[in-house]
Amino acid sequence: MSTQSTTNGVVTERLAQVRALMSRERIDAYLVPSADPHLSEYLPGYWQGRQWLSGFHGSVGTLIVTADFAGLWADSRYWEQAAKELAGTGIELVKLQPGRPTALDWLAENAKPQGVVAVDGAVLAVASARTLAAKLYDQGASLRTDFDLLTEVWLDRPALPTNAIYQHLPPQASVSRAEKLAKVRKVLLERGADWHFIATLDDIAWLFNLRGADVSYNPVFVSFALIGPQGISLFVDSVKMDAELRQTLEGEGITLVEYTKVASALREVPPEARLLIDPARVTCGLLDHLSAEVTLVEGLNPTTLFKSQKSETDAQHIRQAMEQDGAALCEFFAWLESALGNEPVSELSIDFHLGQARARRPGYVSASFATIAGFNGNGAMPHYRATEQEHAQIEGDGLLLIDSGGQYLGGTTDITRMVPIGTPTAEQKRDCTRVLKGVIALSLAHFPRGIASPLLDSIARAPIWAEGVDYGHGTGHGVGYFLNVHESPQVIAYQVPPAPHTAMQPGMITSIEPGTYRPGRWGVRIENLVLNREAGKTEFGEFLKFETLTLCPIDTRCLEVSLLAQEERDWLNSYHAEVDQRLSPLLEGPGLEWLRSRTAAI
Amino acid sequence: MSTQSTTNGVVTERLAQVRALMSRERIDAYLVPSADPHLSEYLPGYWQGRQWLSGFHGSVGTLIVTADFAGLWADSRYWEQAAKELAGTGIELVKLQPGRPTALDWLAENAKPQGVVAVDGAVLAVASARTLAAKLYDQGASLRTDFDLLTEVWLDRPALPTNAIYQHLPPQASVSRAEKLAKVRKVLLERGADWHFIATLDDIAWLFNLRGADVSYNPVFVSFALIGPQGISLFVDSVKMDAELRQTLEGEGITLVEYTKVASALREVPPEARLLIDPARVTCGLLDHLSAEVTLVEGLNPTTLFKSQKSETDAQHIRQAMEQDGAALCEFFAWLESALGNEPVSELSIDFHLGQARARRPGYVSASFATIAGFNGNGAMPHYRATEQEHAQIEGDGLLLIDSGGQYLGGTTDITRMVPIGTPTAEQKRDCTRVLKGVIALSLAHFPRGIASPLLDSIARAPIWAEGVDYGHGTGHGVGYFLNVHESPQVIAYQVPPAPHTAMQPGMITSIEPGTYRPGRWGVRIENLVLNREAGKTEFGEFLKFETLTLCPIDTRCLEVSLLAQEERDWLNSYHAEVDQRLSPLLEGPGLEWLRSRTAAI
Repeated sequence: MSTQSTTNGVVTERLAQVRALMSRERIDAYLVPSADPHLSEYLPGYWQGRQWLSGFHGSVGTLIVTADFAGLWADSRYWEQAAKELAGTGIELVKLQPGRPTALDWLAENAKPQGVVAVDGAVLAVASARTLAAKLYDQGASLRTDFDLLTEVWLDRPALPTNAIYQHLPPQASVSRAEKLAKVRKVLLERGADWHFIATLDDIAWLFNLRGADVSYNPVFVSFALIGPQGISLFVDSVKMDAELRQTLEGEGITLVEYTKVASALREVPPEARLLIDPARVTCGLLDHLSAEVTLVEGLNPTTLFKSQKSETDAQHIRQAMEQDGAALCEFFAWLESALGNEPVSELSIDFHLGQARARRPGYVSASFATIAGFNGNGAMPHYRATEQEHAQIEGDGLLLIDSGGQYLGGTTDITRMVPIGTPTAEQKRDCTRVLKGVIALSLAHFPRGIASPLLDSIARAPIWAEGVDYGHGTGHGVGYFLNVHESPQVIAYQVPPAPHTAMQPGMITSIEPGTYRPGRWGVRIENLVLNREAGKTEFGEFLKFETLTLCPIDTRCLEVSLLAQEERDWLNSYHAEVDQRLSPLLEGPGLEWLRSRTAAI
Repeated sequence: MSTQSTTNGVVTERLAQVRALMSRERIDAYLVPSADPHLSEYLPGYWQGRQWLSGFHGSVGTLIVTADFAGLWADSRYWEQAAKELAGTGIELVKLQPGRPTALDWLAENAKPQGVVAVDGAVLAVASARTLAAKLYDQGASLRTDFDLLTEVWLDRPALPTNAIYQHLPPQASVSRAEKLAKVRKVLLERGADWHFIATLDDIAWLFNLRGADVSYNPVFVSFALIGPQGISLFVDSVKMDAELRQTLEGEGITLVEYTKVASALREVPPEARLLIDPARVTCGLLDHLSAEVTLVEGLNPTTLFKSQKSETDAQHIRQAMEQDGAALCEFFAWLESALGNEPVSELSIDFHLGQARARRPGYVSASFATIAGFNGNGAMPHYRATEQEHAQIEGDGLLLIDSGGQYLGGTTDITRMVPIGTPTAEQKRDCTRVLKGVIALSLAHFPRGIASPLLDSIARAPIWAEGVDYGHGTGHGVGYFLNVHESPQVIAYQVPPAPHTAMQPGMITSIEPGTYRPGRWGVRIENLVLNREAGKTEFGEFLKFETLTLCPIDTRCLEVSLLAQEERDWLNSYHAEVDQRLSPLLEGPGLEWLRSRTAAI
């Protein structure tokens, strides 16, 4: 992602302009979330208003401006960065912590009777708008969402991206657009809806078998989709599609409409329509264009569940992509070991060589997120990213954490491995071993089909909790198929309510990535992706189990093998035997040698 | 619990009388839940209106009567019994199942515009009333809660119980009433409340250090409590207290008021009051007596959380009670083994001898619930209870499940053990071994202080799920201290939302009782009670662990020892060593011999 450099003086001036507008419009508090009309994880520059106005470049944070206060709510990942970037701007860093008031809570608590809170409704989820409006109403205050205040003051606002859209084709795309649309229409019928509006980019990319490059790492394109009883419209900037693709899509009955025309299309949805929307995945500003008579049917986008359940054909492509990715990692690790001690190696050169190794592999498209290569203390920051300005050299003793992933036409990868540098300490080895125990415990689990995924988290954490250790992030996130590396609806995180839509179903791909972080010292995380497979039906119901998809040695030099139970050693040996068997045909020379040396049985 | 014998003709006649009244009052549907004004698990006869009207004697079930329909909603435990008891009454058995409409859902779905649903508000929780009223409102129908229709037709309605109330005294009661009240008042202050109304009997018994015998198994008495800025009132039938106790309580500033005067006391709560109530634990009929200006502050009763966290002194008494209970069980099991093959033994005689063995122990007061002694197929019904009419003889081969517990002045026990009869099969042994693995896995767990208890469930289930087995009930419930054997707020059941109030705190006592049920064949359950103990504070936070409180051998003849991992064998051997060490001083003769033979290391 590009980050704009701002100085504190610029921020102060922008805040003053915004406050003048607020005064003119009689707005008491202005809310700027990190969000866009698609509620995406990565935002095009056009929607990075919070960054522009606050000078804070972290990817998640919420800004509130009033006449005499400005505060930025950020979670612990960003406290250090935010403190630095906000210094001298007059914006207060508000540390977001579990159980403490969020930015929305703050707005409600500080709202005065007759007060007006404003936010650009185009970037606020319907569900959040409802919660906030209800809280403000209780205080006698109100919420205004019809106004993008930044438009008037952000004169050099970036344009929307216009990168080319291309097809995700067979054999990797194994289900046609027509089939996918028929499945979605069937769900609409079941839910008593005849219209459906989709704003989430990965849902749209999946449904249309199209991909793009409008945001970092996620192969999606800025768009909306509207399904009606008679047809389906895709809203995209027309410059993004060549004539051939346009013809193909139109030939299949898809109506292509300019992205900017979505509001008028929503205004034309007939009053008798029953429109399915996901209130957490559509913004209130868009829905405000609907006629008040349209009946909303609320629920998860059908595409979200379909997309999460990969077919057996998809799984076959993913296994191949994992083999290529694992082979690339072997080549990278072989380079790393030969380079250490012979040439300067930094967290940044690791990123470079890793990207190079992956880029040589067939089907590779791009990284699936920014590589996290953190040596010792830097590894203790779960979302660390080395920069040109600040990064560590890899030298001396310790642990190097490398979390990286690739987008392949046949799948999305995400893997974390620990590398011993010099001689790791006994405590470091114990941390790695305990984390591996967590990975193994969950990898071996069977569980009832349909169980809410957050409920599985304690299986991974039990061996880690056993020694008084814990980690603040979730154990696992869903992963897309040549799509977003963070994908709903399942999530293995006990912090998330185990709602019915988080249910585990066959074909879902999830990460297993427990960790241990010792601030300023080192961090440990080991991550594999796993596929939900059927484990048989018994008199007690249907059960699922995990197939480990990720193929790459887990460096046993980081482990205290005596702490592993026999079952755990068996798992590791059998994993390494499979890694060796499947990766060795794709390797030669130093990569192959490295694979062989790192998959020896313990 | 007493059960009234009813014939089908009687039920038909009663329904006709109720329908006539409904017609007179223009009520379209009448709801009769299994509940009383205290929302207790066990109901005095006066509030067993659902049983009186339907003829169904199961302890949980909901009846709905309309002009042309009568249905009883019951969960799977009761389907067999309900089908039998409802036959010929014209009442339909509606099988309550997860994901299917509940009785309240049915009322909402079948409500007509202008329709009136009535229920005695005195027995409907505020939270349930709100949900139901909202659903009915959506249909244009309304809820009437001001009317106990049964009063007019149930002419031989039992009187309210008048059993004596007595003090729970030191040393077992280690915290004085004054201290407890001060703690509650502190919470009221924190929550911005100055009044507090309590309707739940175990909360009241705990707060006042009083016990009674108004319902089966739970040593509580029918009462309400009202705390105001100036004083505290206890509402009980005056015949239940002798002059000495009355004097003692009044001497401590407690105002004793007749139970029937609670409505007028609520009417006198001043309009400026801020009254704390738990909407799930107070009925709407009672709250309707409040002035509309009274501000409700809603939340868990402070007593509920205090009561759940047993002090170290309490824990010492519980350990002693567990020793007595375990010794009683050893004597019982010694009798059982000597009797089998020499005299007829039935599920009923087991109940009798178990009661006798416990009754010989110091501090014993009563059973803490109805013994479940289920041989083979009967053991497969988790809530089976043998009756004079239907019970099995213990003969041949198989598994006998015995789930029982006692109330002691120094604690409440609840234990399930499996007994091999003749030669158990390999499959039966595998079932027992797998269930024991679940017990051990959770018993060994450490976990962050404050984690929502339902999240721990999968730790117990993982070894059971691993072989495609599961069980429908929760893994653990909270247990009182010479109070209810089922106590909130914690519950180890993944089916329960992991809300903040379910958080694990030091001093809580919970059961660990996984199971396996093979309908018509056999059932397995192994149950221990465990105490939350501090496990130390690390840089990652505070952790808790379990101390196993229950002391009684786990019969290794039911186990396939080769399936246990070394860690599991170590747990079992160390548990048996402790059981032997702590119970042997309390035993002699056959009981001691049995203990010795059943605690041998494996």
